[in-house]
Amino acid sequence: MPAPEAMRAAVDEYVAAFAAGDAERVVALFAPDAVVEDPVGQSRLEGHDAIRAFYAGSMQTGAKLELQGPVRCAAETCAFAFGVYLDMAGRESRIDVIDVFRFGSDGKVVEMRAYWGPTDMHAL
Amino acid sequence: MPAPEAMRAAVDEYVAAFAAGDAERVVALFAPDAVVEDPVGQSRLEGHDAIRAFYAGSMQTGAKLELQGPVRCAAETCAFAFGVYLDMAGRESRIDVIDVFRFGSDGKVVEMRAYWGPTDMHAL
Repeated sequence: MPAPEAMRAAVDEYVAAFAAGDAERVVALFAPDAVVEDPVGQSRLEGHDAIRAFYAGSMQTGAKLELQGPVRCAAETCAFAFGVYLDMAGRESRIDVIDVFRFGSDGKVVEMRAYWGPTDMHAL
Repeated sequence: MPAPEAMRAAVDEYVAAFAAGDAERVVALFAPDAVVEDPVGQSRLEGHDAIRAFYAGSMQTGAKLELQGPVRCAAETCAFAFGVYLDMAGRESRIDVIDVFRFGSDGKVVEMRAYWGPTDMHAL
């Protein structure tokens, strides 16, 4: 399994790629057959094409991610809390999210699950 | 599935019961056949007896939990970040953890997974 340092570096790259609005950099963090469930309970996206479309759409909102506290690492997984800052219907807003990444032995993300819902959306 | 308010109340009771050192109050939050994986990657504990023994042992360390930011709720799950404050080998320490609870329709926790590892332990 990847070292915690490698998993934390992947999370940092995820946030940086999102800030740069570069969906391809985000997709490069995922294994070709990776699964994304965002938010948990919604249908799961499978593979690079679906994941690229999802992130490109998210980035079009102008959303920015800001980590809230340290990334936790357990075995081949890591979990991290963050705020998503974006304009919702003309109001600056924050969505509070916790993501869990599961990594393959090659260091690519094989599964991402995002925990958030309507009650995690706040106008600022 | 339980309402987000009910899931958040369960998390608050979890923290309060831990602060009170009352393993039975913690156990009462779980379904009889619930599964606890703490930390993720370790063997899974199944059922009230195993869960009670686990929490009673944790409480003997004098550990206290302190939430870090809001509880996130997605479908029948919630995720929350917290610090565990305890004495480790004579030094006041904090372990950074993210827990994910999955709830049954009756509002009891059916699965708990705790994300933390050696690199999340910090002497204060």
